[in-house]
Amino acid sequence: MPVGSEERWWGWGRNEDAVEVPPHALELLREELGVARQAPRRHVALEAVRLPKAALGAAQRDGLEAIVGPENVRQDRATRVAHAAGRGYADLVALRSGRPEGAPDAVVWPADHGEVRRVLELCADEGIAVVPFGGGTSVVGGVEPLRGPFAAVVVLDLARIADVTALDERSLTVSVGPGLRAPEADRVLAARGLTLGHFPQSYEYVSLGGAVATRSAGQASTGFGRIDELVVGMTLAAPGGEVVLEPRPASAAGPQLRELLVGSEGVLGVITAIELRVRPLAPFRYEGWFVPSFAEGLEAMRVLEQSECAPAVARLSDEEETRVGLAMAGAGAKVRAFAAFLRARRVAGGCLVVAGWAGDDERTAPDRAAAARVLRSHGAVAVGAAPARAWAAGRFRAPYLRDALLDHGVLVETLETAGQWSNLARLYAAVRDALHDAFAQRGTPALVWCHVSHLYATGASLYFTFLARQEAGAEIEQWKAAKEAASEAITRTGGTITHHHAVGRDHVPWMADEVGETGLDLLRAAKARLDPTGIMNPGKLLPDRAGPEKDARG
Amino acid sequence: MPVGSEERWWGWGRNEDAVEVPPHALELLREELGVARQAPRRHVALEAVRLPKAALGAAQRDGLEAIVGPENVRQDRATRVAHAAGRGYADLVALRSGRPEGAPDAVVWPADHGEVRRVLELCADEGIAVVPFGGGTSVVGGVEPLRGPFAAVVVLDLARIADVTALDERSLTVSVGPGLRAPEADRVLAARGLTLGHFPQSYEYVSLGGAVATRSAGQASTGFGRIDELVVGMTLAAPGGEVVLEPRPASAAGPQLRELLVGSEGVLGVITAIELRVRPLAPFRYEGWFVPSFAEGLEAMRVLEQSECAPAVARLSDEEETRVGLAMAGAGAKVRAFAAFLRARRVAGGCLVVAGWAGDDERTAPDRAAAARVLRSHGAVAVGAAPARAWAAGRFRAPYLRDALLDHGVLVETLETAGQWSNLARLYAAVRDALHDAFAQRGTPALVWCHVSHLYATGASLYFTFLARQEAGAEIEQWKAAKEAASEAITRTGGTITHHHAVGRDHVPWMADEVGETGLDLLRAAKARLDPTGIMNPGKLLPDRAGPEKDARG
Repeated sequence: MPVGSEERWWGWGRNEDAVEVPPHALELLREELGVARQAPRRHVALEAVRLPKAALGAAQRDGLEAIVGPENVRQDRATRVAHAAGRGYADLVALRSGRPEGAPDAVVWPADHGEVRRVLELCADEGIAVVPFGGGTSVVGGVEPLRGPFAAVVVLDLARIADVTALDERSLTVSVGPGLRAPEADRVLAARGLTLGHFPQSYEYVSLGGAVATRSAGQASTGFGRIDELVVGMTLAAPGGEVVLEPRPASAAGPQLRELLVGSEGVLGVITAIELRVRPLAPFRYEGWFVPSFAEGLEAMRVLEQSECAPAVARLSDEEETRVGLAMAGAGAKVRAFAAFLRARRVAGGCLVVAGWAGDDERTAPDRAAAARVLRSHGAVAVGAAPARAWAAGRFRAPYLRDALLDHGVLVETLETAGQWSNLARLYAAVRDALHDAFAQRGTPALVWCHVSHLYATGASLYFTFLARQEAGAEIEQWKAAKEAASEAITRTGGTITHHHAVGRDHVPWMADEVGETGLDLLRAAKARLDPTGIMNPGKLLPDRAGPEKDARG
Repeated sequence: MPVGSEERWWGWGRNEDAVEVPPHALELLREELGVARQAPRRHVALEAVRLPKAALGAAQRDGLEAIVGPENVRQDRATRVAHAAGRGYADLVALRSGRPEGAPDAVVWPADHGEVRRVLELCADEGIAVVPFGGGTSVVGGVEPLRGPFAAVVVLDLARIADVTALDERSLTVSVGPGLRAPEADRVLAARGLTLGHFPQSYEYVSLGGAVATRSAGQASTGFGRIDELVVGMTLAAPGGEVVLEPRPASAAGPQLRELLVGSEGVLGVITAIELRVRPLAPFRYEGWFVPSFAEGLEAMRVLEQSECAPAVARLSDEEETRVGLAMAGAGAKVRAFAAFLRARRVAGGCLVVAGWAGDDERTAPDRAAAARVLRSHGAVAVGAAPARAWAAGRFRAPYLRDALLDHGVLVETLETAGQWSNLARLYAAVRDALHDAFAQRGTPALVWCHVSHLYATGASLYFTFLARQEAGAEIEQWKAAKEAASEAITRTGGTITHHHAVGRDHVPWMADEVGETGLDLLRAAKARLDPTGIMNPGKLLPDRAGPEKDARG
């Protein structure tokens, strides 16, 4: 999160956008999770946050100021705290209690590629760790200001490199700075009838550089493609040099270096320019469906995608996500009528499907008709647009709600994976069961639910949400136990350790499972060339050669 | 090309599939290029081919035989010649004259991944260069048996690692050995109602390992995706280790190592297993259109792709390719009637568009209707299926015809690039003019034509074909002059040095233009880890650190 008095240094977004936990939802959590009735527990005051003394030397600060200007090197409390963590559950627990694990010794705002290069060279010479920072929305510890073996760590905030520098309306590409936020990009593009079409949960605050560095996927990625599919060119500034990859529609000129830089999470260097695909702005039309079961829903999703008639937004909730979603909607007349409707059609207890069609009704009609046939053949029943529109209206609300749940002593976290269609039901069961078991073993039974939200011809993503009563005083241990159990289940069952949250710090212990030791060495070889002294984002993405304990946060 | 008495060691395919140059086509070449009337010049006899003495030591041969069995190490003349070159123009000139630049000291056929690893370890220990070999169809010098600084070179023929090892019909993926030929894969898949859908010009002989190692694209890639988009998992055996990338629909677990191995052209190691997407077998429906000009055709292709209604096969010939294509079709009544039809509709002198729609007519009808509107709005006229069907019927014939043209002393070569839509007309003109100028300067005026055959949202490929009267005794110099002029024009005008032919040996001098010196260092760093002694396919893909002359073949 950026600096700004109205923004929550301890949580998500701005105070004016806060949401509360509805009373009936809180009641459900009390009943099912044993959450205690107690006064909300708020965060500590900013002044009470424990901060280490800034370790930057005066000469080092002078050197940074000489590059970016004195006003663009800051060490004040608010700045350091605002850059002390990302926005994962463990981050929020630490920030709210005033006990962040660390903080940057300074935050530096470079103005352009040249200043980034000079800052990196200075930091390499001085032995200062550098953490690139865009929107600060990482939920996997990607922006934690770890200093590794270095005496100091600075955060490189890219908010000043945030221009739209070119728009090629014939090639449908836009050139942007890494600090540009997604909504700002869309605002500029909308004036030309275009959009990026990239809608991660973090949409309101995500920077495009961060999205590219972490292989972000958005809610319409089934139709529009992940961010990795939108990148056509980019520039990286690294301590050991720079890489400029011109925009190309495709090439057979050897390995695709672009795919080495996309997803590099700041450990190879700093993305300073990006060329991205854009698309014509199109209206969305939402449909809701209910399928009798998650298993049948998975089959329907598979056939939709493999028949090339899937909607741009394609979401399938499991039975539990659907049940809790309905329960959270309250018990008014409309909700009761909807439940009766589902019972009459024999899909009560089933699973919600949200389909979001991008484009004019006439253009999407053939695919909608084909999709309806697929869905019906898997027992699905159309339930009108209302549930889908409700999802769309609230789709960026979850992180605000998380803050409110934390006030009430509720652990709430998400994790995600992806697998081949033939393995997806098995992967789903393994992760769900591992999460339930991990919480049960600690005496804090959990709610665990899941949805599929990104379809591919060969497989799909699984996105888990889980809630439990917080273990007061052992919040992080509780979270780690669940995270590790789920991660072990994922890698043991053939899933990828992350589908779109990235590796950050939390998934480092499973990277060897993901790409093998030789694969890790290839990434280390690239790092050795670009970052020979190892100052770039230490502790992220790559395990130390010795191999860490399988332990998400130290 | 593989060993076999019926196969042309000096040309393309088998003798029984040979084609002749039609008399009226030969007449056209005589008129336009000044090709001499003379008796066809055939290739020398196999026995007359100049071969260097095999440099492999007896102990080295024993070592190889101990791994793969004595029958799978061969040094006979036919075997060495069959693996002495790929199938580019320069290769054919050298082979036909009995003067290949080199030949492998032995050809080795390993049976599986384990044997490949042991052969590579032995060769690394002994200092023997290794050239991986699939279908042998490279047109850019990718399989030339260069030995680099080593005393000996062996070709590793992957023909025995050619099984379909698994078919996942739910995930629509197939696991294959690298030596499997595309038609054999399709034959196995067709029995299950599936296809790979990958149709490069070399389809009849291409191996899938070779296609993956070179980022091949096929004639239906606009609809079905390039081979890089079909690879979901792979295994690489290298002297310094192995990399196993499990099939994944998508992942955010750091840089995509798969994209480092795809397109690695044998310089990092040997691909020993591949998981590829497959798709339901579908009928093709062909349509022919004529647009008034290449410029209008480019606009139509752009709008088709950006409107997401492009056919799976989308080809636009320029005026010259269209003109020569019509002239080659002869002067019969049908051809004359067709010419009159074009004149009446004011598209005579225009450009042929071939559209190939994959799928049931009912399913493709909406896209066909949308595409027809786009084409008509750019002045296109439907000309029926015949010209498109003629293209489809003859689409694998070009390399056979090349052999026949060589008999008649005609230089015939192709090269390709890709660029952004906003730059495509400029790139087209630059390359075309560079080729014309290069040949004109040598007093051998050329026919140069081009088509677009792979559409992307942000740009498209350009595929050039050029013919000229061979300069007897200076065939290679003549070819090099044209190749270098075109390559310089491509890189100067912002195109990629290769869209789907790969780098091989011929494009090495332009790799620094493509990815920059730091980019090259990243590839070298990967190579240093996987191939520390540098035995893998020396002289391909990566320029020496010193930087070569800009000179396609030494």
